[in-house]
Amino acid sequence: MATNVALLGLGLMGKPMGHNLLKNGFALTVWNRTAARGDDLVAAGAKRVATPSEAAAAAEVVITIVSDPPAVESVLWGDNGVLAGLKRGSVLVDSSTVTPALARRAAEACGERGCEFLDAPVTGGTWGAEKGELVFMVGGKAETLERVAPVLGAMGKQWLHMGPHGAGQVIKLATNLILALQTVATAEALALVRGAGIPGEKLAEMMQASMGRSKLIDVKLPMMLEGRYTPSFPLRLMNKDAGLALELGAESGVRMPGATAAREVMTAVERAAKEDVDYAALARYWQKA
Amino acid sequence: MATNVALLGLGLMGKPMGHNLLKNGFALTVWNRTAARGDDLVAAGAKRVATPSEAAAAAEVVITIVSDPPAVESVLWGDNGVLAGLKRGSVLVDSSTVTPALARRAAEACGERGCEFLDAPVTGGTWGAEKGELVFMVGGKAETLERVAPVLGAMGKQWLHMGPHGAGQVIKLATNLILALQTVATAEALALVRGAGIPGEKLAEMMQASMGRSKLIDVKLPMMLEGRYTPSFPLRLMNKDAGLALELGAESGVRMPGATAAREVMTAVERAAKEDVDYAALARYWQKA
Repeated sequence: MATNVALLGLGLMGKPMGHNLLKNGFALTVWNRTAARGDDLVAAGAKRVATPSEAAAAAEVVITIVSDPPAVESVLWGDNGVLAGLKRGSVLVDSSTVTPALARRAAEACGERGCEFLDAPVTGGTWGAEKGELVFMVGGKAETLERVAPVLGAMGKQWLHMGPHGAGQVIKLATNLILALQTVATAEALALVRGAGIPGEKLAEMMQASMGRSKLIDVKLPMMLEGRYTPSFPLRLMNKDAGLALELGAESGVRMPGATAAREVMTAVERAAKEDVDYAALARYWQKA
Repeated sequence: MATNVALLGLGLMGKPMGHNLLKNGFALTVWNRTAARGDDLVAAGAKRVATPSEAAAAAEVVITIVSDPPAVESVLWGDNGVLAGLKRGSVLVDSSTVTPALARRAAEACGERGCEFLDAPVTGGTWGAEKGELVFMVGGKAETLERVAPVLGAMGKQWLHMGPHGAGQVIKLATNLILALQTVATAEALALVRGAGIPGEKLAEMMQASMGRSKLIDVKLPMMLEGRYTPSFPLRLMNKDAGLALELGAESGVRMPGATAAREVMTAVERAAKEDVDYAALARYWQKA
């Protein structure tokens, strides 16, 4: 019999992940705060329920992927939350990006109910979610990861065990910090070039031949050159993650001048933006008014 | 008859560039502030002279590659400087990294003497200099670049025309700014991970699979993990270039929170360093005392 999987959170990431679970033959129960976002998954064979606890009660593997720590807290500990429905012996996998402390708190709550927990934030964006090519950064017990590997394999191409509970979140916040700062680097350099009267395309031409070349420059610099910021990964989430990184750094006494600068830039642009934009839009910080 | 080339500045970059000019059959005259640094080039067939003006007088193409703006000013405008010796019709190529303003000033001085000027800073490090695989970012007239292309081809694999006088320096400062900030990003993320009790190797493992992957992370993160900082490109030069980028930004009114943060980190580490270190050593900023 196929494993029963519950999926909570049907946003830009959750929805394609759900379709890939169905395609791979898993029995899927879904829940989302705005129920209508699950319509096409229901049409494709998923069962929709009204509360997180009902979703959890229906599954051996429960996956949550929501936008931020308050959303995770509400879905897990809220009225009719996941923890109220979780069956003994099941596994809760949180693929949201939150603080390691919250991940450890969730792990403890699962343990008290005879369940296992994994923090398993993802990278790969909506494109990776659609293609089933996500990469999971996993914190928790290695044997629990082994148990859910077939489920992760339906949605992703790789799952890396990063350490104990919370370790997945630590690595995720660190990788997003690198992305945010690479984006600041690219945008600030572009502003410097344009400010000196040289076309930004010359920087792009040179970067191909440079030690500074990167995947991020390949993908995001063209967006900056064209001022085209359709969200692949929204600025508001990248900015939120930089905030979480700063929180984590403060806990362990790590100085973070880079994250501080990136957060300043992203916050200014996010406040001024009238629409949802990709994090490449932080380049707007340098636009003349 | 082979073009007579003069090379001034026989440091980590200049010396291997000189050997490649000789290997490619150019008649080479060399000068260096500390004359002994030219011994092996003389042994390989170069002619050594006592002053920059003598070197310039001996050549159709004069290449300067010294460490910073004051060094360029001294070599060009100082007593017995290049400008005093430059023959009408010759080309001065400055491969040092300096401000665009200084490049334009040199171009003007060359013009007054009936000579051409190119700013042509390089990327590729000592490794690229030794293999003859440097990339030149060139500012100046396209036809002048065409004239000296055979000479550049002896030392590098690519020469990109970036725009008018100074444009090569603008792009060079921008690419080094990207490198410096990528390095801050990597080191700060590493500190965050280690501060949370997770081995830095886990970050490296994940970065391979991430959107954040880059040439810089491939090369510099292992150095940081091992704390091994033999200079390929010295921190003091990277820090100097960040200072020049800030100068350029200030001239054109470009805000530079990233460069400001990078400069703070690099200056703290440079001051504390007892030896010459690679710029990857900026990771020491996050070491516990």
